[in-house]
Amino acid sequence: MKTIISYLTLIIILISIISCKDNKQPNNKTIQKSKFALVVHGGAGSITKGKYSIEKENEYKNKLEEALKVGYEILNANGSSVDAVESVIRVLEDSPLFNSGKGAVLTDLGDVELDASIMDGKNINAGGVAGIKHIKNPITLARFVMEHSPHVLMFGSGAETFADEFGLQKVDNNYFKTEERINQFNKNKTSAKIKDSKFGTVGCVALDKNGNLAAGTSTGGMSGKKFGRVGDSPIIGAGTYANNNTCAISATGHGEYFIRNVVAYDISALMEYKGLNLKEASDQVIKYKLPKQNASGGIIGIDKNGNIVMPFNTDGMFRGFIKEGEKSNVSNYK
Amino acid sequence: MKTIISYLTLIIILISIISCKDNKQPNNKTIQKSKFALVVHGGAGSITKGKYSIEKENEYKNKLEEALKVGYEILNANGSSVDAVESVIRVLEDSPLFNSGKGAVLTDLGDVELDASIMDGKNINAGGVAGIKHIKNPITLARFVMEHSPHVLMFGSGAETFADEFGLQKVDNNYFKTEERINQFNKNKTSAKIKDSKFGTVGCVALDKNGNLAAGTSTGGMSGKKFGRVGDSPIIGAGTYANNNTCAISATGHGEYFIRNVVAYDISALMEYKGLNLKEASDQVIKYKLPKQNASGGIIGIDKNGNIVMPFNTDGMFRGFIKEGEKSNVSNYK
Repeated sequence: MKTIISYLTLIIILISIISCKDNKQPNNKTIQKSKFALVVHGGAGSITKGKYSIEKENEYKNKLEEALKVGYEILNANGSSVDAVESVIRVLEDSPLFNSGKGAVLTDLGDVELDASIMDGKNINAGGVAGIKHIKNPITLARFVMEHSPHVLMFGSGAETFADEFGLQKVDNNYFKTEERINQFNKNKTSAKIKDSKFGTVGCVALDKNGNLAAGTSTGGMSGKKFGRVGDSPIIGAGTYANNNTCAISATGHGEYFIRNVVAYDISALMEYKGLNLKEASDQVIKYKLPKQNASGGIIGIDKNGNIVMPFNTDGMFRGFIKEGEKSNVSNYK
Repeated sequence: MKTIISYLTLIIILISIISCKDNKQPNNKTIQKSKFALVVHGGAGSITKGKYSIEKENEYKNKLEEALKVGYEILNANGSSVDAVESVIRVLEDSPLFNSGKGAVLTDLGDVELDASIMDGKNINAGGVAGIKHIKNPITLARFVMEHSPHVLMFGSGAETFADEFGLQKVDNNYFKTEERINQFNKNKTSAKIKDSKFGTVGCVALDKNGNLAAGTSTGGMSGKKFGRVGDSPIIGAGTYANNNTCAISATGHGEYFIRNVVAYDISALMEYKGLNLKEASDQVIKYKLPKQNASGGIIGIDKNGNIVMPFNTDGMFRGFIKEGEKSNVSNYK
């Protein structure tokens, strides 16, 4: 009789445990100091094999490698994740290959208008700028907004007046315009059709040696955009989000959908409130929620344990990552 | 022996149920067609008894009543929640009492720059505008962005060019400037101190007869603001959010914190992912999360069952609500 009761007590305990399995929070994992790590993207879109020449393909890969190396050295020297994110994005802004800084797409009036944002996961401080025409590195201006103003978001000429107070490098709007973008603009004008170039946005997320997460994003927005249209890149919660408790995210894609779906923060919320891990949470948003709305794009993400994700629902995404003591990994296609 | 086993089987089942109780989602509530309802706010801040004369107090109350009546009539005639939200906010924008439209605060240069946004919970479509100087009703422009453009967010003169395509009513910037605001501006200038007027933002959330939710927010932002500073009001997810699956939210408060904390969407996420009800979710954000960051403000919210919340962590909030077939309820203080 005693044996039966003991036996059944064991069954009761087992069933209680099993029946709750699905609802377990992942916060009972072993806490371990993570190695630093860094992820970068250069935009998601119709990036298919054969679209670019081998030379062009290598140019993209080499530039992403160069950016990762810059970030690696900062993190390796005990630099902050915010320092790494800013410096990595500056490399991509200065490159004519991507739709950010030099090489950004042109508006319907033939100008360049840039958006960027950055967020510090340590204190959820953040900065964003939109409609920038003369600041060489919008990501640096976003950081100044974060660290040297009580504000989070500034737009247009007002944001540039703020930049003047700190002597940030200014350039003529023509500096940003590459021959390729001018040709693209003229072609679109002739064909009276605005081509929707949704990729080329750049972003970076990082985890530093002190366990602090950061995220940043920079873009020229939509090709042929007008009416002061702003996408998700400068919007905290949509294009960029970082919180040491969950993850750091930088997005690229059809910005309007990323705003409506509050994509970057949604991934964090799924982790915090639903107990999903980073991969489950980001797949839920990028591979399930967005495709149901015909919304294309992708994100890069990193969590406090250095886990990395780079999901996208487009043909390809320029992306790469590197972890402490390991080799870098860069890819373009699925 | 058989009795013991049956008895123990019952215990096993009971324990299994009890041990999972905390993780139950609330989606097994009785589904019922809700009566329409409407909530409005005129800003949160240091609204204390004695600050306003009885006459002034009544002016605020009467204007909120008038706005509620306009919305009630629309919803009662089977109008949409989006129609009600826009019309209610137009009443408050046209009133010099609130920090939106006419009567908005002045920037450091003595101009008025207006922000607004609106969201339709039926399809999570949304529109927002920032830095508007000449459109009489920014909430209407936000609705045009939502319904007549592929975009979500437009800023500055570009947004006004978009407004021109639809012949929206334009006014000189001086139309918005009341004597009181000009005096406030001159006083602040003389004392070389920018007074931080964080309240006066207006907003509305509604549930219509078809069970559709909508939310909208409109503001002049911070008194003495500069550098093209934008707060949470035009930002979907921060100042405004609506989703038929969860709730409709309009926020008022220290915008920078509302952006960083993605306040409006956070309340929705707490409901969707953590199974909290609207009251629990909004209290969690407004009364627990924000005060820990010294962030002041409040929100109005409504869920798909017509439950209403109006939490704030400031001295007061101009607010009111009305439900189908019931009397309106307007209050200012705690």
